[in-house]
Amino acid sequence: MSNIFWLVPIASVIALSFAWYFYRQVRRESEGTDIMKKIAQYVREGAMAYLRQQYKVVLVFFIILTVVFSILAYGFNLQNPWVPFAFLTGGLFSGIAGYLGMKTATMASARTANAARKSLDAGLRIAFRSGAVMGLVVVGLGLLDISVWYIVLNYFYPSANDTHNMMIITTTMLTFGMGASAQALFARVGGGIFTKAADVGADLVGKVEAGIPEDDPRNPATIADNVGDNVGDVAGMGADLYESYAGSILATAALGAAAFIDNSAMQTKAVLAPMLIAATGIILSIIGIFIVKTKEGASQRELMKSLERGINLSSVLIVIASFALLYMLEIQNWPGIWASLVIGLLVGIVIGKATEYFTSEAYAPTQKIAQNAETGPATVIISGLGIGMVSTVIPVLAVSLGIILSYLSATAGDISNMSMGLYGIGIAAVGMLSTLGITLATDAYGPIADNAGGNAEMSELGPEVRKRTDALDSLGNTTAATGKGFAIGSAALTALALLASYIEELKIGIHRLMETSGKYLFPNGFQITDSADLNKLGLNDFMNYFQVHLMNPVVLIGVFIGAMMAFLFTGLTMNAVGRAAGKMVDEVRRQFREIKGILTGEAEPDYARCVAISTKSAQLEMVVPSILAILVPIVVGLIFGVAGSIGLLVGGLSSGFVLAVFMSNSGGAWDNAKKYIEAGHKGGKGSDAHKATVIGDTVGDPFKDTSGPSLNILIKLMSMVTIVMSGVTVAISLF
Amino acid sequence: MSNIFWLVPIASVIALSFAWYFYRQVRRESEGTDIMKKIAQYVREGAMAYLRQQYKVVLVFFIILTVVFSILAYGFNLQNPWVPFAFLTGGLFSGIAGYLGMKTATMASARTANAARKSLDAGLRIAFRSGAVMGLVVVGLGLLDISVWYIVLNYFYPSANDTHNMMIITTTMLTFGMGASAQALFARVGGGIFTKAADVGADLVGKVEAGIPEDDPRNPATIADNVGDNVGDVAGMGADLYESYAGSILATAALGAAAFIDNSAMQTKAVLAPMLIAATGIILSIIGIFIVKTKEGASQRELMKSLERGINLSSVLIVIASFALLYMLEIQNWPGIWASLVIGLLVGIVIGKATEYFTSEAYAPTQKIAQNAETGPATVIISGLGIGMVSTVIPVLAVSLGIILSYLSATAGDISNMSMGLYGIGIAAVGMLSTLGITLATDAYGPIADNAGGNAEMSELGPEVRKRTDALDSLGNTTAATGKGFAIGSAALTALALLASYIEELKIGIHRLMETSGKYLFPNGFQITDSADLNKLGLNDFMNYFQVHLMNPVVLIGVFIGAMMAFLFTGLTMNAVGRAAGKMVDEVRRQFREIKGILTGEAEPDYARCVAISTKSAQLEMVVPSILAILVPIVVGLIFGVAGSIGLLVGGLSSGFVLAVFMSNSGGAWDNAKKYIEAGHKGGKGSDAHKATVIGDTVGDPFKDTSGPSLNILIKLMSMVTIVMSGVTVAISLF
Repeated sequence: MSNIFWLVPIASVIALSFAWYFYRQVRRESEGTDIMKKIAQYVREGAMAYLRQQYKVVLVFFIILTVVFSILAYGFNLQNPWVPFAFLTGGLFSGIAGYLGMKTATMASARTANAARKSLDAGLRIAFRSGAVMGLVVVGLGLLDISVWYIVLNYFYPSANDTHNMMIITTTMLTFGMGASAQALFARVGGGIFTKAADVGADLVGKVEAGIPEDDPRNPATIADNVGDNVGDVAGMGADLYESYAGSILATAALGAAAFIDNSAMQTKAVLAPMLIAATGIILSIIGIFIVKTKEGASQRELMKSLERGINLSSVLIVIASFALLYMLEIQNWPGIWASLVIGLLVGIVIGKATEYFTSEAYAPTQKIAQNAETGPATVIISGLGIGMVSTVIPVLAVSLGIILSYLSATAGDISNMSMGLYGIGIAAVGMLSTLGITLATDAYGPIADNAGGNAEMSELGPEVRKRTDALDSLGNTTAATGKGFAIGSAALTALALLASYIEELKIGIHRLMETSGKYLFPNGFQITDSADLNKLGLNDFMNYFQVHLMNPVVLIGVFIGAMMAFLFTGLTMNAVGRAAGKMVDEVRRQFREIKGILTGEAEPDYARCVAISTKSAQLEMVVPSILAILVPIVVGLIFGVAGSIGLLVGGLSSGFVLAVFMSNSGGAWDNAKKYIEAGHKGGKGSDAHKATVIGDTVGDPFKDTSGPSLNILIKLMSMVTIVMSGVTVAISLF
Repeated sequence: MSNIFWLVPIASVIALSFAWYFYRQVRRESEGTDIMKKIAQYVREGAMAYLRQQYKVVLVFFIILTVVFSILAYGFNLQNPWVPFAFLTGGLFSGIAGYLGMKTATMASARTANAARKSLDAGLRIAFRSGAVMGLVVVGLGLLDISVWYIVLNYFYPSANDTHNMMIITTTMLTFGMGASAQALFARVGGGIFTKAADVGADLVGKVEAGIPEDDPRNPATIADNVGDNVGDVAGMGADLYESYAGSILATAALGAAAFIDNSAMQTKAVLAPMLIAATGIILSIIGIFIVKTKEGASQRELMKSLERGINLSSVLIVIASFALLYMLEIQNWPGIWASLVIGLLVGIVIGKATEYFTSEAYAPTQKIAQNAETGPATVIISGLGIGMVSTVIPVLAVSLGIILSYLSATAGDISNMSMGLYGIGIAAVGMLSTLGITLATDAYGPIADNAGGNAEMSELGPEVRKRTDALDSLGNTTAATGKGFAIGSAALTALALLASYIEELKIGIHRLMETSGKYLFPNGFQITDSADLNKLGLNDFMNYFQVHLMNPVVLIGVFIGAMMAFLFTGLTMNAVGRAAGKMVDEVRRQFREIKGILTGEAEPDYARCVAISTKSAQLEMVVPSILAILVPIVVGLIFGVAGSIGLLVGGLSSGFVLAVFMSNSGGAWDNAKKYIEAGHKGGKGSDAHKATVIGDTVGDPFKDTSGPSLNILIKLMSMVTIVMSGVTVAISLF
């Protein structure tokens, strides 16, 4: 093993140490008054109760799948023997990341509210440092898992001077991504349903029917709403980005191993490069985190500037540092690979800016929705949908441009050098996520500030405190837009890298089959009898032999089913939110009716009951969409083989990506159109126009917080399942 | 030319003769009272004024494109010299079909209302016979255009014993589809924007603000609304299905020519088979039309039965007749080809039934939306979207199954015989559309009955008349669902057939290039120097040489852009409806404010002004989406070449198909959820639940009548543009 590799576990330990340091720092602060403590306690208990329940359900799935994988691997020799273990650790680490992030977030919100009683800067510091815990835990655990597996596998398959062993190592490590993806999907879907059931339910009865403000302690669903922010936006997002992060690094490592299959020294460098870039990014993220601060009375623009300063510094530094790193690594065509990395970063920034333009109340699109509110809710919905759909143009073009440019850079313009080109696309994804430590910190900061506001409202702190928490919260909405750009863009690029590395997994699967039967017959009739010949096959040959071209009906059917899966999954999650919200509405109405004195403040509502309803609904409703995401790729593989599977992934990726951007942006724009009116435009709060935008916002809730972000994971989970099942697919399929 | 070919022009003449006969028959009926005549006259004038304006704008486009095509063909020798003429006739015939259909429909509505004063059966007979005029004109003109071109081209390229000439004939004929598609897109988008601007505007101010009923003569936008039904649902749909019909026959003929490139006799049969099936379908449709009748006091179920009897009879007869036809033709593997045809018909029926299930108030999904109306408009929208998305599953699976089964049937199970398989997919599309004469009659019947109801309301005829027209109208909603199944399913299959025939166009383009330069270099580096070698290349070779596989970044970018195009186009048309409706709202409000006595019935509103606003908006707003649909495939072809173009088409087809099903079904379900409540459920008319569903219905208007149906054409127009530009793409492209 190369000495330089050790930088990776070191960076991981540094990240986790700083996370611990920040955690301790925040923990030392006071939680404020007794009532603040009590509310924080409620939220904490609700969130933890939810997470326990969630992990129980997920555990059952993991056990079942691990048994299946063990049978496939040990019973039928159709799978890599490491898969069951890799799968489990991926799920475990992802779960730990979500747990620690949420523990920090629920610990931090009352402390943020309490600090905001002193000053804006104090509030910002606590909220942001808590977000940083999340960011650093995710990247730290990601690299830890990667490091441990790399060490273990190198022990069993020494990769020095053995390029085939390195292929085995990288393709094996890739399978731990499936554990992370599966965990992430459950977290996102379950958390998303939980939070939006509570939010929609609280709004529909509390705000609209009873006419009490948001986060009012008289609303029985208000604690559930705050719990939801934590389980959906913190734990869900953490698990989501954990798998993006790990997935992009692992897929790129596998592509690097494939690109340099005939040069062991260069291969090792290509495999280590994405890990080292990530390790460097961790250190630079920590530097960025330290420079974020603000002063009292700072305007929102100044607050934003201070966060942006941190992110920008980290980004500029990673551009410089990775240049030096790749130069020192002396990897082949290093300037081109460095350019791919920079392209990836730029694509993330462009998508983030476009997201901001289409969803921020400072720009025309959102204002146009607010304008349409004057003719009622129908035109709010029509224009929000229309704008969301149009907003897909820039992200798609940015990703497309990113794909072709990073491909061409990495190949130094030689388009026929396909494996180098795909490696370049992977590097672009890694580049986009290299500063995840700090971008995720600004992202996780949002729900913490939101909860701090909730705590301030329920604890009836003074208006100047509420004003400060509002400033922090509204900032969170903008950073969330930027974060979403990275989440969506990286999902698309990572999914592409996964798709490419699927071919490498297939090779390993065919090798395994040839060990027993001595030959392999491709679907186009070509038969291979010598393992050495297999290694010589290029990507184009594979595509030709498996007939993965767009005139093959099997591929086309795969593409159709993939596109349909994106819509089906979205429809199921939308319906799930609708049903769960309905139950919440019934419960809140019941409490207002049966518990006398809630609305006068004389009796306390039964918060726990609402939390329990959201928990139960989320657990119930997350099962079907999640199982589908795992089962459909397996069934398509068994029936339509490799060609159909790749079709499925491309169809799911293209439709899912565009659909995810559309839903996130429509949802964001509706939310901010409402805020724009609440700020006093078009008649302000309470006007008919305001009511119309409240309806738009409610429709947008599952768009932007349940279905949209879950789609990112769906795309990658389907790829991961296909990769893990590759051994079965090459052995058994109808077509 | 084979003698049996003459059946095709004969069937065409029979169709047009019966259309003329039915037209005369309806025309003899009375238009009723003076006020009925006056209203009918208003609608007729508005519709014709719109169509004149529309055709003017379209003419400009056609002139520009014809000039461009002439330069490409004659100046640079990059295109088939017949393209400019074929393009023009396609546009012309499609325009005539729309014009005649609309002329009949606007002539028929008052007569239907007047007949409904006598009896339900009399009303049904007139409305349905007028719909039949439309159906027969579309199929008659379609086969006429095909016949004329076949005769002319056979004169210049005698195809007897010359398979290469037959290839030239069929690929040349295919290009007239682009004229039809372009005309259809303008008609659908322009008509769709017109009708929904008027509808939404009329509803928002009239129904919601002023509280007057639908079609009330005091509403200034009510004439525009009725005009809209004609220009959108009649002229737009006619042009739409004209191009589906012609496109499926022509693409299948081209695929047939390719499948039997080495057997001239069999090739002629394969080319003629789709035309002969269509010709047979015409005769059987006319028989079906004649048996549709009902009796006074018939329930809606009985009415539906009488229409279904006609369709079912035609369908059963075509199954039998085509068996006989293919048997007598002695075409190779005729039982398999016949099975492909039956599969196509079945897929259409399955999609129709699924559409009915998801959109009819008789079933759970629509009732669930009505149920959700009790918690307000937000939950109506969420559940409508969710249900629409879930409803895509059956159509996608039906089409997928249809693709693979028709492919396998036509190849007699030999999946490697790709050209026969693709021919089978084409035959399935032709089968699905073979009874278009009668299915389109039931479809065009809907807006006629709708307008008859409008006329009855405005003319203040008695409640029993209104009840009869309501029965006819509501039947139209169900038949529209079935019709949509065929429109969407055939669009998907036809687009696939077009995609496959693109390869044949490429061959012709490469032949042309080789005539001048003597060689052709494929993107994968393979060079060909002998035209004879080119003819020997199979589909798999082409896919390999052009690297149209799913690991090629150029293909993937094409797929991304294709998926994005479907969303962008939908977003643009949604926004267009929003803007146009906004102008209508302003105008109606202005008239209520400035023209005293409108609401008391003392003054007549300025109907013409509203018609003019819808006309102007529609013309203005249809330009950008339509130009995009033409320009994007050209630009993608120039940059990303053949591989990128095929990626674009597959991405557009998969996303566009699923999106179209989703939008049509959500829109239909919202509409019927409203009707369900109006029928007295969940509080009935005027309740809060009713208001919530009115909002859902308004959102659904552009879904089901503008964006959804336009997507079908977008998919095919993009394919047609790519096909027509194939000569340019093989000669010039960046990648």
